[in-house]
Amino acid sequence: MTDELILHEYASSGNCYKVRLTAALLGLALERREYDIMAGETRTPDFLAKVNANGRIPVLQAGDRFIPESNAACFYLADGSFLVPEDRFDRADMLRWMFWEQYNHEPNVATLRFWHGWIGEANWSDLQRAQFPAKRAAGEAALTLMDEHLARHDWLVGEGLTLADVALYPYTHVAEGGGFRLADYPAVQAWLKRVENVPDYLPMTA
Amino acid sequence: MTDELILHEYASSGNCYKVRLTAALLGLALERREYDIMAGETRTPDFLAKVNANGRIPVLQAGDRFIPESNAACFYLADGSFLVPEDRFDRADMLRWMFWEQYNHEPNVATLRFWHGWIGEANWSDLQRAQFPAKRAAGEAALTLMDEHLARHDWLVGEGLTLADVALYPYTHVAEGGGFRLADYPAVQAWLKRVENVPDYLPMTA
Repeated sequence: MTDELILHEYASSGNCYKVRLTAALLGLALERREYDIMAGETRTPDFLAKVNANGRIPVLQAGDRFIPESNAACFYLADGSFLVPEDRFDRADMLRWMFWEQYNHEPNVATLRFWHGWIGEANWSDLQRAQFPAKRAAGEAALTLMDEHLARHDWLVGEGLTLADVALYPYTHVAEGGGFRLADYPAVQAWLKRVENVPDYLPMTA
Repeated sequence: MTDELILHEYASSGNCYKVRLTAALLGLALERREYDIMAGETRTPDFLAKVNANGRIPVLQAGDRFIPESNAACFYLADGSFLVPEDRFDRADMLRWMFWEQYNHEPNVATLRFWHGWIGEANWSDLQRAQFPAKRAAGEAALTLMDEHLARHDWLVGEGLTLADVALYPYTHVAEGGGFRLADYPAVQAWLKRVENVPDYLPMTA
């Protein structure tokens, strides 16, 4: 990869951490540009025109091209590396977990972390209050599904770390910030430790 | 691909149609097994144990292995074909649209089609009624983002049809079932026609 890599991000976002973790595991240098999402810095006309019309971070910039969507940015970095399985079925199975992460895990586990840690329960809207029980139940169902899989497998796909683990680790390891109890998911806890023991692992706060 | 391919599906689901459309474009034969989602046929203990622990369709079965998540199933079928760009950036950009589809488009455009066409507004829960305005606005934002992109490009990625188009066509072309007005998105309408003119295009009802 010869293009200079710039990560447009908000460092506390698990979606942004995914991209940093992928780069660290691959030994790739990333320049980081921080945006204050609470101050609307990803919704300015300039950001929408130049970085991401969808007004969200992370966006990975490679030279003069931009890749929104955290899991697509991770795939760009890892394409052809040990993080993407060579086996055709395993490669699709890796993407299966990554699509599941964005549909079933992130909108519940990550959203409740944001609602608790950034908005604060006292400030929730009526709609947030109405949505809370379903998001809590869906987040627990997502963690349970992972726990049942990880009770039988060391890694989400195949016999080693893949982008599926990299995509699911960030919001899972801070799920308690959303009110979830990781002690209820022992196989998930053991897997979190396995990820943390991988060479070149990078903590979220690094 | 030598394994027999079986699609576990509910035919009216756009997510299931994605997989059938991908197979048709690639000339692959799919055996189809229908489940009545309204009768809970994808939540039975047997389905959860053998087909998908997440209780959802579509699931693509290849021999004795199962791939949940529509976009992962499409990727499995199309991996190495003309539907997946050879260029590294374009390949990631294709996945960008596919992740965006599952996060920003499907939960709004497809969900409102389901709420209107399968549940019926008179039967909506209080939570559905409370969520409706935000889902409507988010669905319109998703269609607007596509329209602005497609006003400048014939296809979502690069110079021809990719899996990004295959993933976004199904729920977009029936968006009016969710109360969206396709006439408001002329570039989307022109793109729908381009997809329908591709050789081996398969209609949703086929």
